[in-house]
Amino acid sequence: MTNKKINIAVIGLGQIGNYLLNELNTKKNDIELKTGRKIHIAAISAKSKNKKRRFKINKSIFVKNPLDIIKKKKIDILFEAIGQSDGISKKVVETALKNRIHVITPNKALISKHGDYLSNLAEKNKVNLEFEASVAGGIPILRTIKEGLATNKLHKVYGILNGTCNYILSEMEKTKDSFSSVLKKAQILGYAEPGNPKLDLNGYDAFAKVRILSSLAFNKRISNKKCIMEGIENIEYKDIEIASQLNFRIKLLGITELINGKLFERVHPTLVKKDSYIGNVNGVMNAVIVNGHPVGESVLQGEGAGPGATSSALMSDLLSILRGNIKYPFGLPNFKRKYPISYNDKNSSNSLYIRLEVRDKPGVLSGITKLLANNRISIERVIQIPDHKKKSASIVIITHKAIESKSQKLINSFKKNINILKKPVLIRLF
Amino acid sequence: MTNKKINIAVIGLGQIGNYLLNELNTKKNDIELKTGRKIHIAAISAKSKNKKRRFKINKSIFVKNPLDIIKKKKIDILFEAIGQSDGISKKVVETALKNRIHVITPNKALISKHGDYLSNLAEKNKVNLEFEASVAGGIPILRTIKEGLATNKLHKVYGILNGTCNYILSEMEKTKDSFSSVLKKAQILGYAEPGNPKLDLNGYDAFAKVRILSSLAFNKRISNKKCIMEGIENIEYKDIEIASQLNFRIKLLGITELINGKLFERVHPTLVKKDSYIGNVNGVMNAVIVNGHPVGESVLQGEGAGPGATSSALMSDLLSILRGNIKYPFGLPNFKRKYPISYNDKNSSNSLYIRLEVRDKPGVLSGITKLLANNRISIERVIQIPDHKKKSASIVIITHKAIESKSQKLINSFKKNINILKKPVLIRLF
Repeated sequence: MTNKKINIAVIGLGQIGNYLLNELNTKKNDIELKTGRKIHIAAISAKSKNKKRRFKINKSIFVKNPLDIIKKKKIDILFEAIGQSDGISKKVVETALKNRIHVITPNKALISKHGDYLSNLAEKNKVNLEFEASVAGGIPILRTIKEGLATNKLHKVYGILNGTCNYILSEMEKTKDSFSSVLKKAQILGYAEPGNPKLDLNGYDAFAKVRILSSLAFNKRISNKKCIMEGIENIEYKDIEIASQLNFRIKLLGITELINGKLFERVHPTLVKKDSYIGNVNGVMNAVIVNGHPVGESVLQGEGAGPGATSSALMSDLLSILRGNIKYPFGLPNFKRKYPISYNDKNSSNSLYIRLEVRDKPGVLSGITKLLANNRISIERVIQIPDHKKKSASIVIITHKAIESKSQKLINSFKKNINILKKPVLIRLF
Repeated sequence: MTNKKINIAVIGLGQIGNYLLNELNTKKNDIELKTGRKIHIAAISAKSKNKKRRFKINKSIFVKNPLDIIKKKKIDILFEAIGQSDGISKKVVETALKNRIHVITPNKALISKHGDYLSNLAEKNKVNLEFEASVAGGIPILRTIKEGLATNKLHKVYGILNGTCNYILSEMEKTKDSFSSVLKKAQILGYAEPGNPKLDLNGYDAFAKVRILSSLAFNKRISNKKCIMEGIENIEYKDIEIASQLNFRIKLLGITELINGKLFERVHPTLVKKDSYIGNVNGVMNAVIVNGHPVGESVLQGEGAGPGATSSALMSDLLSILRGNIKYPFGLPNFKRKYPISYNDKNSSNSLYIRLEVRDKPGVLSGITKLLANNRISIERVIQIPDHKKKSASIVIITHKAIESKSQKLINSFKKNINILKKPVLIRLF
């Protein structure tokens, strides 16, 4: 693609696709300056042609069926911004790659599920599949791992990967409001999906990002093994308050590491020290911490979501392609990427924060501490807070390090205890 | 360079060059896996062939005169790790580029002084000139600006760019030791040059990095205008202690920004809030904060110095070249890079921390406050700490925002005041 114009298609014109389109239009000269290439937006497609959008679209290049764009127009680079893990998103991306069209996408659901298959397609057809925007938009973390830290031996990558959850937890602490009322506020502000925020709140979104990070950091295929994936739906203001008294904050962390060569991926709420770096990443901010040799610890922080940060990442992918950097999507040839061996998460160990809502009557605490003793989990600290009106009490237990399998048994044993009134809240310490 | 071996030369085998050589030797397979290229270390050169080094060198490929390597051997990629701003460093790099050899260097002194000239040479000869390691080793900040944030409109980049100074300031706070004794410790630990740490301590090293950051962030030629460059040599434990009582920490910041399109670069000690992000980057850590549109604020933190972090950056440059990413060294063609227009630093304004050592006698404070009033600098806070033994006192003044030109006049007027016993300490607030 030497001197001719580069034809671009944008599929999906929601918040992200629409913002991107405006960036492409306003930065044409800058792009030419930095890459020597002229871009031309040749076609756009979305579910609705006429819905109200922040930036006006050029309806004369609108095509109803995105697959028609691939078949009938000469496209060089296609942006997929629909966002499904399968269905039309997958169809558009695979058809484009098969037709030797470079693809750029922020779609973490698609990449974490079908990334191996799609990167194979890209490699075979000698085009790029770029997905910098799929993890922590404003932070060029994938490029940093693939290029900036390329020959380091990485052993751990972790961080705050979901801006929605981090906003909710920070805002609950600040306003002392309940989970549900802060969630509503997040939806009004556009930080959480108005319809179905479930995939953010239950940890799925962060987990998809963890999978992409693992495969890049450790040069493996994307794992499909089940692992610890817990969200923040059960966290109450009470937990944030008690954690604060103990000098902790609650953060939803995504963590991936190699333990004796075995892959251990997880997402769960975590008690982190208030004065730690990660404990001070608040609001919609994302942060990623990379540990490797010889580089030591590198930290990257930036806006994790929103059309601005996401477009920044999409544009960086575009420039990479226009500069002629044809690369393996995961940094090395697919046939060299082996399947990871999974670490048995039952062997992991953590100190635990356990909050139980119990009947306020004699013998209850002793019954509970006995359950811990039965599972050989030793207690570091107990706090009992009575609620005289409800004739109940909150019991908070901080344990010493406990093996995950024992912790699971403990949680199960709580179910049979009739003095425990609600589902226990369990938060791991970091 | 398709299937043939890539011949590599390493010039300079001090701490960095020696560590790099070991990385190259141990990571050959990894490099081939990720780039498809086999590397071969064809020649090395240094002042001394036989001095004791951490990793043994292969003396059979040692060449006394580095220029002989360029003339007599077929080299594809050359690492310059000597570190001078001129002299043999410049000669080696320009000769290599003229002979169509890619050059990789961590040499900030060279790049900040001759970067425009050398990048022109590289462009003309269609080879790469890579210098990721010249700024904040463990943080891929140059790549992030050139690629990860490529089409963002950046308006400010700042941070802690000198690990030596940051270590000294952190250590003084922690141990309550004097500047000179902490400096000695830094030298023993290898954080500060044993012979001449001046270029770290007087701000020159950080300033060279600021210049490189400016040219990349704002797509301009490297400025050569004088600007505010102050180091930490005059800071005493007393200042750290008083700052701490006021809830501040002292950090040496490098700052570059565009003010109405004009470039304002500076390096000086700065009072930053203790609970701010930058106030908590301690020890040898570096941190860079980038503000741009649409990405918002991005933060990168990592080890700023040491052979491990520096080698990590040098290796990332190597992989970039091996992957075939031929790029403009400053992100766009040299003829498109204009000279920056400089902001007149006399118009900048800051709140100031001023510490004066004065005679402890009546009327002194009133004389000093009169000097501030004469320069129309208003006072926010005054602290007077007597030293009865010496019959002197420390006066610390925090001012409201004052224009730089007035602050300079004020400092000059202090010189004529016979009650002021020592050179005043001036630290700007951030």
